[in-house]
Amino acid sequence: MKKTLAIDMDNVLVNIEENWINWYEREFGVRVSKEAMLGVNEDEAFPDKAAARSLLYKPGFFLNAPIIAGAHDALLELKKEYEIYIVSAAMEFPNSLIEKHDWLKNNLPFISWRNIVLCGDKSIIGTDLLIDDHVKNLDFFKGESILYTAGHNIHIDRYTRVNNWEEVLKLLL
Amino acid sequence: MKKTLAIDMDNVLVNIEENWINWYEREFGVRVSKEAMLGVNEDEAFPDKAAARSLLYKPGFFLNAPIIAGAHDALLELKKEYEIYIVSAAMEFPNSLIEKHDWLKNNLPFISWRNIVLCGDKSIIGTDLLIDDHVKNLDFFKGESILYTAGHNIHIDRYTRVNNWEEVLKLLL
Repeated sequence: MKKTLAIDMDNVLVNIEENWINWYEREFGVRVSKEAMLGVNEDEAFPDKAAARSLLYKPGFFLNAPIIAGAHDALLELKKEYEIYIVSAAMEFPNSLIEKHDWLKNNLPFISWRNIVLCGDKSIIGTDLLIDDHVKNLDFFKGESILYTAGHNIHIDRYTRVNNWEEVLKLLL
Repeated sequence: MKKTLAIDMDNVLVNIEENWINWYEREFGVRVSKEAMLGVNEDEAFPDKAAARSLLYKPGFFLNAPIIAGAHDALLELKKEYEIYIVSAAMEFPNSLIEKHDWLKNNLPFISWRNIVLCGDKSIIGTDLLIDDHVKNLDFFKGESILYTAGHNIHIDRYTRVNNWEEVLKLLL
């Protein structure tokens, strides 16, 4: 039987940092650099944190976000060896539920609805592996945890780290 | 640490049988009896199966369904002893995602967004227990399985069965 592999969406499959920077610039006229996001919570990188968070509730914010480079082809490869589940903590933003479903349909059409999980906390996800950018998810995960690099997690050193999808393939195949 | 208890929505918390019968009558003028649902898949109880299934895509179908008798108070009791997760296989009907979220907010407001899981197949749910009416979910579950009686599952005998929320409390508390 194939091993089961859970993969997070934001900052792992979905380039939410770039998306957030672009939306903030378009709405508020200030372009924040990628470097400003290093080592801080994402919303803290923006001049007005509340304004930045308000973008998460705008229609289209999640739906139109770009895919992380290499993710599409890497998942096609991984799918041969692993049973892949997309597991996103979407429940905090109910407006994102349908957009996240539709994003997956648009960007990764080979992922079945059977393999999509939109949840709150991920502690009850019982897959063999989890790739995620948030330690709050990895800390309570019972399987093998893999940290996908995002600006906010660069100082974390207690997990196996991957910086891009090429490194995921090298690690898992 | 509390044991983790996953609870299905349709036919366990949500009275989807009654809801379906009511909607079918309102839309197509024929009232199907509860007895017609015994031992068959739910859609097969209706004179026109395709028409019955079309109702699942109508706005409001999931949102306005009635709650199963006793569920609200039973969950309040169970919450003292268990960490409860609501786990619904909603992904087959993407239109239901926001309605299921909102249904829970309306009917069980004490359930946090952190404890809601909308998924496809439930095989990767790693809770200690699962209460569900579908053997397709219970069969692949690794913890303790409890079958909640619904018309379609009356001939199943390979699981601990509960017929109502009173029996759930008697079994689990």
